[in-house]
Amino acid sequence: MTSQQRRVAIIGATGIAGQQFLVALAGHPQFEITALAASARSAGRPYRDAIRDAAGAMRWWCGSGPPSGIMDLPVQNAAEFDPRSVDIVFSAVESDAARQLEPRFAAEVPVFSTASAFRYEPDVPIIIPGVNLDHAALIDTQRRQRGWKGYVIPIPNCTVTGLAITLKPLLERFGIRHVIVTSMQSVSGAGRSPGVLALDVIDNIIPFISGEEEKVEKEAAKILGKVVGEAIEPTSFSVSATCTRAAVLDGHTETVSVATEKACTPEAAAAAMSEYRGDLAGLDLYSAPRQMILVHPDPFRPQPRLDRDADGGMATTVGRLRTERTFGHGVKYMLVSHNTQMGAAKSAVLIAEYLEHVGRL
Amino acid sequence: MTSQQRRVAIIGATGIAGQQFLVALAGHPQFEITALAASARSAGRPYRDAIRDAAGAMRWWCGSGPPSGIMDLPVQNAAEFDPRSVDIVFSAVESDAARQLEPRFAAEVPVFSTASAFRYEPDVPIIIPGVNLDHAALIDTQRRQRGWKGYVIPIPNCTVTGLAITLKPLLERFGIRHVIVTSMQSVSGAGRSPGVLALDVIDNIIPFISGEEEKVEKEAAKILGKVVGEAIEPTSFSVSATCTRAAVLDGHTETVSVATEKACTPEAAAAAMSEYRGDLAGLDLYSAPRQMILVHPDPFRPQPRLDRDADGGMATTVGRLRTERTFGHGVKYMLVSHNTQMGAAKSAVLIAEYLEHVGRL
Amino acid sequence: MTSQQRRVAIIGATGIAGQQFLVALAGHPQFEITALAASARSAGRPYRDAIRDAAGAMRWWCGSGPPSGIMDLPVQNAAEFDPRSVDIVFSAVESDAARQLEPRFAAEVPVFSTASAFRYEPDVPIIIPGVNLDHAALIDTQRRQRGWKGYVIPIPNCTVTGLAITLKPLLERFGIRHVIVTSMQSVSGAGRSPGVLALDVIDNIIPFISGEEEKVEKEAAKILGKVVGEAIEPTSFSVSATCTRAAVLDGHTETVSVATEKACTPEAAAAAMSEYRGDLAGLDLYSAPRQMILVHPDPFRPQPRLDRDADGGMATTVGRLRTERTFGHGVKYMLVSHNTQMGAAKSAVLIAEYLEHVGRL
Amino acid sequence: MTSQQRRVAIIGATGIAGQQFLVALAGHPQFEITALAASARSAGRPYRDAIRDAAGAMRWWCGSGPPSGIMDLPVQNAAEFDPRSVDIVFSAVESDAARQLEPRFAAEVPVFSTASAFRYEPDVPIIIPGVNLDHAALIDTQRRQRGWKGYVIPIPNCTVTGLAITLKPLLERFGIRHVIVTSMQSVSGAGRSPGVLALDVIDNIIPFISGEEEKVEKEAAKILGKVVGEAIEPTSFSVSATCTRAAVLDGHTETVSVATEKACTPEAAAAAMSEYRGDLAGLDLYSAPRQMILVHPDPFRPQPRLDRDADGGMATTVGRLRTERTFGHGVKYMLVSHNTQMGAAKSAVLIAEYLEHVGRL
Repeated sequence: MTSQQRRVAIIGATGIAGQQFLVALAGHPQFEITALAASARSAGRPYRDAIRDAAGAMRWWCGSGPPSGIMDLPVQNAAEFDPRSVDIVFSAVESDAARQLEPRFAAEVPVFSTASAFRYEPDVPIIIPGVNLDHAALIDTQRRQRGWKGYVIPIPNCTVTGLAITLKPLLERFGIRHVIVTSMQSVSGAGRSPGVLALDVIDNIIPFISGEEEKVEKEAAKILGKVVGEAIEPTSFSVSATCTRAAVLDGHTETVSVATEKACTPEAAAAAMSEYRGDLAGLDLYSAPRQMILVHPDPFRPQPRLDRDADGGMATTVGRLRTERTFGHGVKYMLVSHNTQMGAAKSAVLIAEYLEHVGRL
Repeated sequence: MTSQQRRVAIIGATGIAGQQFLVALAGHPQFEITALAASARSAGRPYRDAIRDAAGAMRWWCGSGPPSGIMDLPVQNAAEFDPRSVDIVFSAVESDAARQLEPRFAAEVPVFSTASAFRYEPDVPIIIPGVNLDHAALIDTQRRQRGWKGYVIPIPNCTVTGLAITLKPLLERFGIRHVIVTSMQSVSGAGRSPGVLALDVIDNIIPFISGEEEKVEKEAAKILGKVVGEAIEPTSFSVSATCTRAAVLDGHTETVSVATEKACTPEAAAAAMSEYRGDLAGLDLYSAPRQMILVHPDPFRPQPRLDRDADGGMATTVGRLRTERTFGHGVKYMLVSHNTQMGAAKSAVLIAEYLEHVGRL
Repeated sequence: MTSQQRRVAIIGATGIAGQQFLVALAGHPQFEITALAASARSAGRPYRDAIRDAAGAMRWWCGSGPPSGIMDLPVQNAAEFDPRSVDIVFSAVESDAARQLEPRFAAEVPVFSTASAFRYEPDVPIIIPGVNLDHAALIDTQRRQRGWKGYVIPIPNCTVTGLAITLKPLLERFGIRHVIVTSMQSVSGAGRSPGVLALDVIDNIIPFISGEEEKVEKEAAKILGKVVGEAIEPTSFSVSATCTRAAVLDGHTETVSVATEKACTPEAAAAAMSEYRGDLAGLDLYSAPRQMILVHPDPFRPQPRLDRDADGGMATTVGRLRTERTFGHGVKYMLVSHNTQMGAAKSAVLIAEYLEHVGRL
Repeated sequence: MTSQQRRVAIIGATGIAGQQFLVALAGHPQFEITALAASARSAGRPYRDAIRDAAGAMRWWCGSGPPSGIMDLPVQNAAEFDPRSVDIVFSAVESDAARQLEPRFAAEVPVFSTASAFRYEPDVPIIIPGVNLDHAALIDTQRRQRGWKGYVIPIPNCTVTGLAITLKPLLERFGIRHVIVTSMQSVSGAGRSPGVLALDVIDNIIPFISGEEEKVEKEAAKILGKVVGEAIEPTSFSVSATCTRAAVLDGHTETVSVATEKACTPEAAAAAMSEYRGDLAGLDLYSAPRQMILVHPDPFRPQPRLDRDADGGMATTVGRLRTERTFGHGVKYMLVSHNTQMGAAKSAVLIAEYLEHVGRL
């Protein structure tokens, strides 16, 4: 670890979401993983043993293998982990655990979380880098109201990410009245516990994901809203979501119809999206995509298999931009966003990079 | 063949769409297949040989095997087929061939077709049984204007079928202003020549089906329109379609958002759909579903794999009925419709059954 | 229930294996379900409620819906179920539970089980109907040694079923020296707890199924062995199995290479298999396939999707019979067997039908 | 192009196999693509236009996009292409075309081909780099007998590649008597014309690939054989292949049972494979894998999705090494080999690299 590097803990390090943090932070120039924590069941063993099952098979689920550097790190019991031993906590635990653990960690250091536990608290922003990093202003409110030295910043539900990223330039340039979105989500979005059974999704579409549509509607409104005083005023436009599951491994595909306030041609929408840099403009952060949104002219794009990995899974790909004639003004389009890259750990890491850049880490 | 049975020819009998006619007519009480025709390449051989490839493998693609009764029927050259040898023609040829062949057949006998060739002619109705059998009134116009003894009745694109069936009761009871639909279509909708490659759709969503969205929008408006004088006046409400392909074998899934003219709760929409019998009410036709629309209360339905075969693939299954808050009044829902049953041959057969019933065959 | 009907209990009735018993017994002429039992968690509620989850969705996983007749039957606690209230028990519980429960039930009545708990006991036969019903002779041994009024008869692992069925006629007619088998198993073979995750099997082959190969090798040897005195002498030929999982919903596919003792052409093997009736010959049992083995001449068969449902899933389909030149004498072939029909509940029901027929129930 | 670089032509450059050559050669230090050729239909247009369809969609099927450098290269008519304009030809045309074109090209320059046209000619070796580069000795025979300045070297059928690579170290160290192999091949192995239809392989296994088993048996024997005088003497051991198609995008999986001449434990086989470097030992060729064979101890490996890309798709991954008790001595194992990397263009490029290294290009 160089002297500039921050010490980082991964909580929930043995699960699939935690493993994605390990991959996102492998070789990171600013953040070094110095602590791993998980449930009591895994605690006390080096990481290499903690992810082996009884039969000796490695329970590791990311494309690239586990970073060699962390294999010997001992896994600590998350319930007893001392956050003062690190500078930053990345939390990848389930929501119930997050509700217990994260306040204790946030009392000491910044916590970036994939859990939904705190997303709907008035003093907690849900942040997508490039879209609403300015919502980090609520950090001060959190600290004051809760008496924390650190803070909690959750990232949104992975289905919201691509939607909010592509709506933001439309909102800024044309205004938005209504959004209707249908998602065809990948199975990795459900994780592994219990995850989506092959029996349920092969040769099939699963038409319902419990709680997902409410999250999409509520989180999009908050993310695209404005900080007003010490809270976020959600957007006033409606989002109507239908969320389905398809036999796709990674990458959420969404069809989006948008009623805009001002006239908006497909070409103008494409330009707004392609040019959009948002609050990452001019920065050169390690995990940031070179371009937030890639607009494809080929009508056969975006496809989740072909486009999910664009720019390391950090860019959102848009295609099929057409006029939406249902509304006075409007466009419709499709998007693909990588639910386990920009929609998960790497997004949280990018937020941390930004906050370090602006001196708020 | 009993004396009441009509003699039926299947044109395009060796292709997958033609084979679906063979299955739909196997054991039919009123229609007996007495002639088969296909391209010159297959002509002159008994059917059992015409569907064997060079290696001796049977080129038959429907779940149940070919009906035994037709295996020895000689396959005739469609270009030379004499329609006067039968009472009815069911045509399952490609659109270009249909444009050549169907007028010659319709000059003599009724032709029911899965091809799109004549769908957009002003004097040709596109019929979905249960929805707009009254459009068959254009038969007289066709005969007079074209000097035919018979007529041509095409069925619609298979993606329109479930959509129009579920919109019809909403239209009648609540009026419709706008429709936004996203389809996740099965691979059987593309047939086999060339069909959808496994390479393209495994672990993927294909975001575009060439020409499909235009067909959905145009055909729905015509089918749900009204016969005015000697033509069909399409509906005035807009249909905005996004058509995609998913890794599903059979059954098209669609998410539908509808702006209604009058207030419409999900419960009222469910009742309207469940009670809907349309122009099949009171009849007891052989191929008709017992109920046009099955409304499922379980939020995990409809699923294409579980619901496509409802009532022999002739019923449309609806679920997830919710208020669509985007519009002043509205509902949203999902549907599954079997694209190769109610969306193909069996639908054409059911139309013929109806027209026989009303003495127009 | 007519006076001839036997009263039947399903243990593990809420799980997927138990549901398969419900379907297998729906409308059965001899057996009537009069009792359902499951874990304490489900007990005390009518079946229709016991299979609803917290959100109200029905947890039912068989193609056809649950038989209406049993929806109001109360689910009893399996741990407290009194076997004297029925004539037969069908057990579909996990192996650990089976080890506890089945002896208590077998003390009173015959128990037919899908669990592996007792398969390897010397006095317990593993039975496949049509193959080794004569092994039921061990019933007397069981009763005497264990002091039971009833007995336990387990069916084999579902991967063994098609293998043993197709080997039996070869064994009888040609003798067998060696068998090498590779299976490509369907995901339904793993059930739902935890089952196979879509994440693991889409665009993939899973090369290992824990414990499966040992079961295939051991159970095939026992099933194809002979009753000698009060035990079964397993066959002396070797079975070498490699078991894999493929992205197939139902139906296990296996490639089999067999070294025979006598000369055996593919034609002779086909004849032996096609003619094979085994110990179901001349009986006309309700659940029996008309033919044990269907031999397909088309090289593109068998395919799991096209052939798994042959004869209600009770027939095994064989194709690609060729000479296996590796051995002095031999054949190789592929088979498809429905793992949740002949490989599960329906097989157990068929054994019970046979034993009733011969007066041993 | 630097002065050391060889000028390379890709024949069949618009098809999927040709595109794999473009990717394999992008940025290559020794070979520069200076000519592209395809059928007359594509000829006369810059590559970027030749791969656009009528609707403007790009017909490019490799994961990474087309190398920018070749987009403006004109596509020539293969039938008229002058081989003297380049130093090397890589041919990716269909077998019929290869039979016509390749002799004309080989008369002037070395031709490396993915086509089967010349594989079975006595003076033509089928080469897998690392396994039998010594068979290139037949170049002289070819030149003399055919009067060519160049030569033709085909690579084998993609299903043979992983098999022959893993058998070679066993053959060298233990001798081989028999091989029984079952393949579960990916759909990309069938290309796109016509390719494997999604309708045929979703929820299915296709049990037959026309001509494939004969190719595997014949080509393995030739590749593992010895140059004797002016011809190759094939191995005397038997290979018995069953080739199937699974719903996998890329990567062929094979289960292999091997009877060895000498005693061979799984550990000894693992060591032989892991240590195997073959005729690439000590060289540091650009496209070569660091290790020919990766032996995995985890029983859940190899999996095509996880292992096909090992070392850029150039390494073969082996797992599940166990004793094969069927034979006196023997082992069984599973392998995964990337059919469109080591099994296709990159393999041909690696052969060319080797021949340049030894001064035979």
